[in-house]
Amino acid sequence: MNMFTLEQTAPEVVAEDDPALQLPFVKQMVVQLRAMDGYGAYDTWKDARVLDPLVLTKERRKAIPVVGDPDETTLSRVKAYYNALAQTLEKQTGLLAVPVINITHEGFGRALILVGKLVALDKTLRDVHRFGFDSLEKMTEDAEKLLAKAKLLVDENRTVAEL
Amino acid sequence: MNMFTLEQTAPEVVAEDDPALQLPFVKQMVVQLRAMDGYGAYDTWKDARVLDPLVLTKERRKAIPVVGDPDETTLSRVKAYYNALAQTLEKQTGLLAVPVINITHEGFGRALILVGKLVALDKTLRDVHRFGFDSLEKMTEDAEKLLAKAKLLVDENRTVAEL
Repeated sequence: MNMFTLEQTAPEVVAEDDPALQLPFVKQMVVQLRAMDGYGAYDTWKDARVLDPLVLTKERRKAIPVVGDPDETTLSRVKAYYNALAQTLEKQTGLLAVPVINITHEGFGRALILVGKLVALDKTLRDVHRFGFDSLEKMTEDAEKLLAKAKLLVDENRTVAEL
Repeated sequence: MNMFTLEQTAPEVVAEDDPALQLPFVKQMVVQLRAMDGYGAYDTWKDARVLDPLVLTKERRKAIPVVGDPDETTLSRVKAYYNALAQTLEKQTGLLAVPVINITHEGFGRALILVGKLVALDKTLRDVHRFGFDSLEKMTEDAEKLLAKAKLLVDENRTVAEL
């Protein structure tokens, strides 16, 4: 191994026996993250390692530079998250849910989930460089809040969601 | 003038006395194109010249290479068009209309206009490199068709559009 190209990897914060790994939304995130891994980089990785960069401790957050546009790997995590939300909403409503991610500039943007002609979820994105959560439990909690709101909107406007 | 930096400009196809310049949608396009011109490049240009690249004759269409991602100037024309549509829809409905343009890869993508929680317009974009119209009349005609559909959708689902 070449010491000049050897990357300093951050210590892993998600333990392999973390009970949160069994949460349905966390499992869905693993599916989505692996689905976006076109080069098979994650093939030999355990779920904990695939999820690890999503958990941002204070130290990790500080270490991320917020300059220019977020890189592709960061964007793929944002996409995986909204894909997982859309996928879960689809299961809950029985209707096709389509995520649309729009990064406008320097980590700002908008995430939408469309169900038929209904905007079931509309979230302003900021600080995408530092996209992450305090813990996997917190990620699931946030997701469940967003999903509850989206599901209610679909239920209340079912005709538009079925257009 | 430096002959080495002098660009060969395509012959202008929009005449300065083209009656289509008086069409309300065409005027709105001029407003939007000028609004996106951050460096003031259009300041000394007449409306006909600002609109000119939107009219794609067969020869012009052929001359545009469809490789890689479309450039910023092309994208700004697409944005101006959907901004103009949103602006017009706003006037027609009295509700805020928000354009969302999402270019996914190599000139493919999606254009949305959102009114409240309603997707009033949803259009698949392809071949964005060659975004343009046979004439300004044709551009207006296309826009009016899209607007009629969007307006109807808003009228029929006013409660969702007002969310």
